[in-house]
Amino acid sequence: MSDENPGGDGGNDGDPEGLTHVDEGDVQMVDVGDKPDTARRAVARGTIHLRAATVDAVRADEVGKGDVLATARVGAVQAVKHTWETVPMCHHIPITNVETTFDVGDGRVDLEVAVETTGKTGCEMEALEGVTTGLNVVWDMVKAVEKDDDGEYPATRIDDVRVVEKTKRPLE
Amino acid sequence: MSDENPGGDGGNDGDPEGLTHVDEGDVQMVDVGDKPDTARRAVARGTIHLRAATVDAVRADEVGKGDVLATARVGAVQAVKHTWETVPMCHHIPITNVETTFDVGDGRVDLEVAVETTGKTGCEMEALEGVTTGLNVVWDMVKAVEKDDDGEYPATRIDDVRVVEKTKRPLE
Amino acid sequence: MSDENPGGDGGNDGDPEGLTHVDEGDVQMVDVGDKPDTARRAVARGTIHLRAATVDAVRADEVGKGDVLATARVGAVQAVKHTWETVPMCHHIPITNVETTFDVGDGRVDLEVAVETTGKTGCEMEALEGVTTGLNVVWDMVKAVEKDDDGEYPATRIDDVRVVEKTKRPLE
Amino acid sequence: MSDENPGGDGGNDGDPEGLTHVDEGDVQMVDVGDKPDTARRAVARGTIHLRAATVDAVRADEVGKGDVLATARVGAVQAVKHTWETVPMCHHIPITNVETTFDVGDGRVDLEVAVETTGKTGCEMEALEGVTTGLNVVWDMVKAVEKDDDGEYPATRIDDVRVVEKTKRPLE
Amino acid sequence: MSDENPGGDGGNDGDPEGLTHVDEGDVQMVDVGDKPDTARRAVARGTIHLRAATVDAVRADEVGKGDVLATARVGAVQAVKHTWETVPMCHHIPITNVETTFDVGDGRVDLEVAVETTGKTGCEMEALEGVTTGLNVVWDMVKAVEKDDDGEYPATRIDDVRVVEKTKRPLE
Amino acid sequence: MSDENPGGDGGNDGDPEGLTHVDEGDVQMVDVGDKPDTARRAVARGTIHLRAATVDAVRADEVGKGDVLATARVGAVQAVKHTWETVPMCHHIPITNVETTFDVGDGRVDLEVAVETTGKTGCEMEALEGVTTGLNVVWDMVKAVEKDDDGEYPATRIDDVRVVEKTKRPLE
Repeated sequence: MSDENPGGDGGNDGDPEGLTHVDEGDVQMVDVGDKPDTARRAVARGTIHLRAATVDAVRADEVGKGDVLATARVGAVQAVKHTWETVPMCHHIPITNVETTFDVGDGRVDLEVAVETTGKTGCEMEALEGVTTGLNVVWDMVKAVEKDDDGEYPATRIDDVRVVEKTKRPLE
Repeated sequence: MSDENPGGDGGNDGDPEGLTHVDEGDVQMVDVGDKPDTARRAVARGTIHLRAATVDAVRADEVGKGDVLATARVGAVQAVKHTWETVPMCHHIPITNVETTFDVGDGRVDLEVAVETTGKTGCEMEALEGVTTGLNVVWDMVKAVEKDDDGEYPATRIDDVRVVEKTKRPLE
Repeated sequence: MSDENPGGDGGNDGDPEGLTHVDEGDVQMVDVGDKPDTARRAVARGTIHLRAATVDAVRADEVGKGDVLATARVGAVQAVKHTWETVPMCHHIPITNVETTFDVGDGRVDLEVAVETTGKTGCEMEALEGVTTGLNVVWDMVKAVEKDDDGEYPATRIDDVRVVEKTKRPLE
Repeated sequence: MSDENPGGDGGNDGDPEGLTHVDEGDVQMVDVGDKPDTARRAVARGTIHLRAATVDAVRADEVGKGDVLATARVGAVQAVKHTWETVPMCHHIPITNVETTFDVGDGRVDLEVAVETTGKTGCEMEALEGVTTGLNVVWDMVKAVEKDDDGEYPATRIDDVRVVEKTKRPLE
Repeated sequence: MSDENPGGDGGNDGDPEGLTHVDEGDVQMVDVGDKPDTARRAVARGTIHLRAATVDAVRADEVGKGDVLATARVGAVQAVKHTWETVPMCHHIPITNVETTFDVGDGRVDLEVAVETTGKTGCEMEALEGVTTGLNVVWDMVKAVEKDDDGEYPATRIDDVRVVEKTKRPLE
Repeated sequence: MSDENPGGDGGNDGDPEGLTHVDEGDVQMVDVGDKPDTARRAVARGTIHLRAATVDAVRADEVGKGDVLATARVGAVQAVKHTWETVPMCHHIPITNVETTFDVGDGRVDLEVAVETTGKTGCEMEALEGVTTGLNVVWDMVKAVEKDDDGEYPATRIDDVRVVEKTKRPLE
């Protein structure tokens, strides 16, 4: 059976059982079978805005729920490795390296995640999943200090999540 | 310690601690360490029988729970990628491509799932998991229209799940 | 923000930023928040057709890859417990019991999976996932004996997967 | 053995084996054992900035990789259900409802995810995971049209991810 | 269809299709449907033996791969929450609290994991999975300092993993 | 952005936004990008101590919950394949073979798990996860016979978990 349907969308393909191809709801992975293995690197970066007092507590490792940055790094690395199942049409590629870098400033924490692979397709989705999950883990760890009296988060916001580097070189 | 037990099932292997090999309950993966990476493709196909009105609703994308075929395609692709954990003795192989094809006829929807890999073993289990899970997702999405007044499914049935193609060629 | 869009599909909802609701690609879980916890049971059943020699080997526990039925039972139970992630719009319900029953006949093995829950929604998808995965595990375990010389499966087929019982009673 | 260490960080607790409590690297879940089950709802929202042409393609469902919004909705729902494992210190709570709303504007797509639970703790992390993963899935689906000639994403950015609603009411 | 087979193991149950119950390879979950929800606590404990220099490095947080104890605590908590899928016949129970306690002594690190649930069955398997996985994570983090010149681990050993406390009280 | 911070721990890197690198809570994967694929094997071994009557029941396959050793073998193989997610800083490597060997003696069951890979890093963590999880599964399966009247496990203990073999050879 071919994937093409010369009779057009919903056309009858002459199947003796009267079956008709249906192209609606199409979703598909990209075929990477003919792509060579390549050394690839992608870096993504994002920011979480927090109250000044929360940033101080993170920096001093004085958050009651524990070590915010260590937990966020573990969460980011795990998110990188799980991207093939979190993002439905992603391939499962071999991750050879993950680096997490935190920068702390006035009322903000930045997370940069660098991912390297030797697979057949790029790893920017892995880097993005690392950043967004890592920042969500920061949020989760500081909930108690970040909430206002109504349990809301007026100051908390994840922003400026983007891919800042993509490189590719042949495997030696 | 060797996996062989010359003394037979349950024989004493002379261990000074009086330990005895037990072969009961044996379950094992196939050793694929010496197999070359190969380009492989497997295609499986199956049918779900539904009420005529349900098939019409699927075709017209008028099912209340949402887009049946898009959801089933995502479910099928995810099932293909998860076969290494769903089927206990399967290896984890790199999936390079998945194609899902729906054909709709009188009182039935057919799903064909084609899987391609560059791994050391075939991918027919992946194709079969894609078909059975994809058809189960169809079932889940149309439950409200397919149930009778007692909440039973007199017309619903998954049938004729089989492998329709298996090919293998050396990697270039 | 409301889920309704009085202006119709794609109508402008007057958002100052010029945003427009888009209902395309709708997929949603059923809201079960107001349903009571209930004792529910669902039973599904299906058949795998195999060569006569394969059925004999299964019955005598002489399949090289190991204990076919024990492995399939474990695979079925795990599939039941994982249905909330395998079938995308399923809820995660507490599974209180799973029973797997194998019946062996001429050229066939039948698997029946009974699932019980105390949750807010039925468990027929869990029972169906148990049956289809359990039968796929049988297939995987007997691949070596079931394949013909070309590596094809002319005799192997999963058939007649259906829900055979659904009951519900109030929790005491 | 108590979690407290009156002798201070690294103090000797008099264990006959000379063992010393070590509080470094502390990370812990919040104990929710005494909290009542409650009906809770949290809504999060975020934006992905895309090229105008990409937004048009999403709106017209003309993206080659398939139905962007349906796939993103499925990805968001799955991310909500998986938050207990993605965010390391989250509890596993029963999700009773997930609603995904897309709004499309000039050069942007907004995603709002509402989550409801009847558990012992709030579901804002679930809503945030739904938004960030859903927006990452949009990014993944439109990669081919969004990349520039160097494979970079100069226009693509996820922004303004925040919790916009949190409510709680006793279960009836 | 009943789970009982009056005709004994392999006896014919008179099915018109000639099907025979097969009890071989039996594996089953315990039915907990009639058990009440209860507040339960289980504590497990175990030891990893390491070189003295490694223990010093762990204590001083000077291991190159990073914060050993924070990573092990996260690994232990995640293992507790995943026990329902790691241990095949376990039920999925609601975990309300996990506490991890490290004690460091001469050439050894002890890990104690306390788990609390409000479910229908005990949580000692969860506590045991927390301890064994947490200790395996310690091993993984200190591999570089613990290996000898041949890459072997002459001093490393996990020992004395046991359940040290189990309690149960009615829910209020 | 570089991972190095010449200004030392917490030093200012001159970022115009006043951001400062924070090295606290560091946790990282080992970069294996430049390592060649290699054929590797690791074998781990461990013991569970049980009551004599329990060991007899395991040997005779008379445990009510079902086939202890088959279930434990499946659990061990699955744990090997899942090590990349259970042990947070592990890489995901292709597992080509897993062998499980049980030896039964007076009041004890020993489990040896051999793992083979063709990946860029060793597989001892996989073998250890196989052993500890396999022994935990044994514990779970025999709980009913192993518990005393108070529901405690006075005799049950996992001991002597160690790596007994590690080898590496170039791929042909």
